[in-house]
Amino acid sequence: MNAPANFNELEVGYDIPALPGMDEAEIQTPCLILDLDALERNIRKMGDYAASHGMRHRAHGKMHKSVDVLKLQERLGGAVGVCCQKVSEAEVFARGGIKDILVSNQVRDPLKIDRLARMPKLGCRVIVCVDDVANVADLSAAAERHGIRLDVFVEIDCGAGRCGVTSADAVVEIAKAVDAAPGLHFAGIQAYQGAMQHLDSYADRKAKLDAAIAQVKEAVAALEAVGLKPELVSGGGTGSYYFESASGVYNELQCGSYAFMDADYGRIHDADGNRIDRGEWENALFILTSVMSHAKPGKAICDAGLKAQSVDSGLPVIFGRDDVTYVKCSDEHGVIDDPNGALKVNDKLRLVPGHCDPTCNVHDWYVGVRGGKVELVWPVSARGKAY
Amino acid sequence: MNAPANFNELEVGYDIPALPGMDEAEIQTPCLILDLDALERNIRKMGDYAASHGMRHRAHGKMHKSVDVLKLQERLGGAVGVCCQKVSEAEVFARGGIKDILVSNQVRDPLKIDRLARMPKLGCRVIVCVDDVANVADLSAAAERHGIRLDVFVEIDCGAGRCGVTSADAVVEIAKAVDAAPGLHFAGIQAYQGAMQHLDSYADRKAKLDAAIAQVKEAVAALEAVGLKPELVSGGGTGSYYFESASGVYNELQCGSYAFMDADYGRIHDADGNRIDRGEWENALFILTSVMSHAKPGKAICDAGLKAQSVDSGLPVIFGRDDVTYVKCSDEHGVIDDPNGALKVNDKLRLVPGHCDPTCNVHDWYVGVRGGKVELVWPVSARGKAY
Repeated sequence: MNAPANFNELEVGYDIPALPGMDEAEIQTPCLILDLDALERNIRKMGDYAASHGMRHRAHGKMHKSVDVLKLQERLGGAVGVCCQKVSEAEVFARGGIKDILVSNQVRDPLKIDRLARMPKLGCRVIVCVDDVANVADLSAAAERHGIRLDVFVEIDCGAGRCGVTSADAVVEIAKAVDAAPGLHFAGIQAYQGAMQHLDSYADRKAKLDAAIAQVKEAVAALEAVGLKPELVSGGGTGSYYFESASGVYNELQCGSYAFMDADYGRIHDADGNRIDRGEWENALFILTSVMSHAKPGKAICDAGLKAQSVDSGLPVIFGRDDVTYVKCSDEHGVIDDPNGALKVNDKLRLVPGHCDPTCNVHDWYVGVRGGKVELVWPVSARGKAY
Repeated sequence: MNAPANFNELEVGYDIPALPGMDEAEIQTPCLILDLDALERNIRKMGDYAASHGMRHRAHGKMHKSVDVLKLQERLGGAVGVCCQKVSEAEVFARGGIKDILVSNQVRDPLKIDRLARMPKLGCRVIVCVDDVANVADLSAAAERHGIRLDVFVEIDCGAGRCGVTSADAVVEIAKAVDAAPGLHFAGIQAYQGAMQHLDSYADRKAKLDAAIAQVKEAVAALEAVGLKPELVSGGGTGSYYFESASGVYNELQCGSYAFMDADYGRIHDADGNRIDRGEWENALFILTSVMSHAKPGKAICDAGLKAQSVDSGLPVIFGRDDVTYVKCSDEHGVIDDPNGALKVNDKLRLVPGHCDPTCNVHDWYVGVRGGKVELVWPVSARGKAY
């Protein structure tokens, strides 16, 4: 096979694994592919859910790190903007034209605070989280220096065990400081319970969220008592959004993984005891991989190893096959048990990654496929933007 | 702090975490930093070792994925070229001017074979591994189509359990086919024992390598018996290079991790029972991270999580500190036990990554530091090039 005439103008070097119009069989592997039909169905479904429950949906951009996917979430799913975790990610979304951006994290480094305060000049609202009253003066000074307004969420640690304060008193203290600071606007509460999202049982997840909701309600009541009713109370993920939506206190969701799904999330169960990747959400993201050696019987070697995924939450699962199993991952290779010799060299397989977020972060491109053809190639626009 | 005037011409968006001349304290974290003094010492030391033992050293570029680091290995360490694992990596090294390139892996996809056969037009030798006689005709046809020569190593699986044939008969069969194929040149043997590199004990590693060496010697004798003496017998890693060098059959090393070191490799022991990161090699690669929340006593939150590293081989280790410990990693955060409250917000720490190869692969830049100042910023040139 010769390279397609339009594949790359350079004689040596393929900086992109596919071009629109290619057959799926010609895609250079390993790479990420998106099943566009499944992606669109997931996005519409979450949008419909949020709309019918009176919730804003601020889609989590840290999962896909893609301006294009975010715009699809705005267009098809009614997303009201983005949340992301790092200033460098937020810069990519701001430059990409997203108008409502939450950095759902603390920003403490002086230069990062300066970078944050430049973004509203592009015409977007920028919200940042605070969990330490000592941060307020620095944010205020930067906002004044650049002549812009920064919105601020006070972050509550409601079970994730990372950033955030735990007491209602601390929430009120920070909110008051924000409210009094020039250039800052107290905009609400960040309360994302990250630690419960991956518990398998619906009842276990509900118990953790019930505790979080009680904690958030107490903080909101304390804020209202001092005249600082929060405009937004934001949180919720793919394993919990129905709890926040029914809470009566949250009014904004921050779901990410629902759009792509992954093997680890897929294993959790809904209220009826069904895996959430068997009905609630569809697998839309895959690592496309090829068999590149089968020199020993019973064992096929594929080209997707640690450079093509993160295995922090377990190995990938081979989609749609129960006769072959991905059993081992090294830097560049995956070992596949193939007891019946079902695979041959150059066979392509779709892997459902163990954990979508850090897997997307190692790839430069999303190859969108429909009906066996490449329809689009989108950059992972904020890939590597961790700073 | 205002952004430095020369940091970025754009008002919004920092596409690079540092600029030469900056103080180390101003680097935007998390990012990779290289201790240039340590790096240069490691590179010279391996070069001296190879030279004094009559071995060629083909530095493994899959570890750092950097044309600049490879050129430093050529200049200071006498490296004779590069080995790497993917065609897309090889393309980056070829375009970067490296003249002797081994793809130490199988290439089976038709378009990838075509890409491989374009590279010698840039004036470099290209070697590829074969473990299946069915691959030979495809490589030969591509070489003829492009009017170039492809060199071929027959790959022996001497314990890694991935690609490669195991019997001397199979080696001879493939070598004969290569020798007879137009456009191909039988150049030698690939025999890398990957599975033993990380065994802690020197004696355990030696036992595995002794078995591998016996297997390689048998194959070489069988090749010589049919008039196909291999020009190169290539293999060896940071946990084994002294065994291959003393074998009398290998003549080329393929070490990678020695240059940067990591926490997992650092734990293995030399012949005297000492950890190899306490004398044999220095830690030259670090993830620079900042404390960005300390809202709860005893627990500091830093900004390096799964988007800044791979944890497949364990969590990172905080360099030079025994009072604080990195204990948990989520997408964007690291949790640090800080029992004595030694850390404060914006403190910077150097993390030794658990596994250097897939950690380098998530970053776009190496920030080279010396004496507390940023001296250079090099791209991770083949980052994401897994296809």
